[in-house]
Amino acid sequence: MPENMSISVNGQSQVPPGFRFHPTEEELLQYYLRKKVSYEKIDLDVIRDVDLNKLEPWDIQESCKIGTTPQNDWYFFSHKDKKYPTGTRTNRATAAGFWKATGRDKVIYSNCRRIGMRKTLVFYKGRAPHGQKSDWIMHEYRLDDNIVETT
Amino acid sequence: MPENMSISVNGQSQVPPGFRFHPTEEELLQYYLRKKVSYEKIDLDVIRDVDLNKLEPWDIQESCKIGTTPQNDWYFFSHKDKKYPTGTRTNRATAAGFWKATGRDKVIYSNCRRIGMRKTLVFYKGRAPHGQKSDWIMHEYRLDDNIVETT
Repeated sequence: MPENMSISVNGQSQVPPGFRFHPTEEELLQYYLRKKVSYEKIDLDVIRDVDLNKLEPWDIQESCKIGTTPQNDWYFFSHKDKKYPTGTRTNRATAAGFWKATGRDKVIYSNCRRIGMRKTLVFYKGRAPHGQKSDWIMHEYRLDDNIVETT
Repeated sequence: MPENMSISVNGQSQVPPGFRFHPTEEELLQYYLRKKVSYEKIDLDVIRDVDLNKLEPWDIQESCKIGTTPQNDWYFFSHKDKKYPTGTRTNRATAAGFWKATGRDKVIYSNCRRIGMRKTLVFYKGRAPHGQKSDWIMHEYRLDDNIVETT
């Protein structure tokens, strides 16, 4: 069997041929992100930790490959970096540009119960307010506080 | 974790949350069909055996569910039934109608090497030549003889 037929993580093949990682938003929040923020073990470590302030969008592809199937979406965890030590605003700049929120945040539900939010961001090359808009889009998911604590 | 988040076969959860069965044609032939015709064990038994002559297309959905995610494609193995005991033509009739080939067969390659063919069939309700065409489409994959024997 050609090697490109199964998904391997750390060199170990763990998912049978034919399976692709296409998670729902509920799975991303309720399973992957919830385990991550609770420091629980995630069985198959398909979502990598990256530092979004150090990585340009075009470098994410290589870091976040799953198997060898061509991908159009990449999944990762990243800690938020505060823009100012005492504030709540997030530093979303990289060396080459910055991520800027667009549109309205979307509520994510699990069995009709609100569990978190999704923010959509666009990457601009350059420095605000003079950045040049790119085609790179990122969805940032966050869990509601009560979901992290109670489940 | 809600139960609908992982794929289970025979009640055992075997694929992590977020993975869906979206095989390539190469994977279907080179991995699943080749193992099936060689009587080799398939690790995760996601492709069911059905008798296409006994099953109407609208009954296949229930037999061939994978997990609880909504599906638009169903995968199965079925033995060919000969139309006449001494002939080579295939009996593709069910109680309610019949499958009829359409278009030209497509060659399936693996690493630039021909491994098999795909036939496309449409389901007609009623009896030939007076059937009523439906929206049900089936792709029938077959392995080349030399692939079954040499690999």
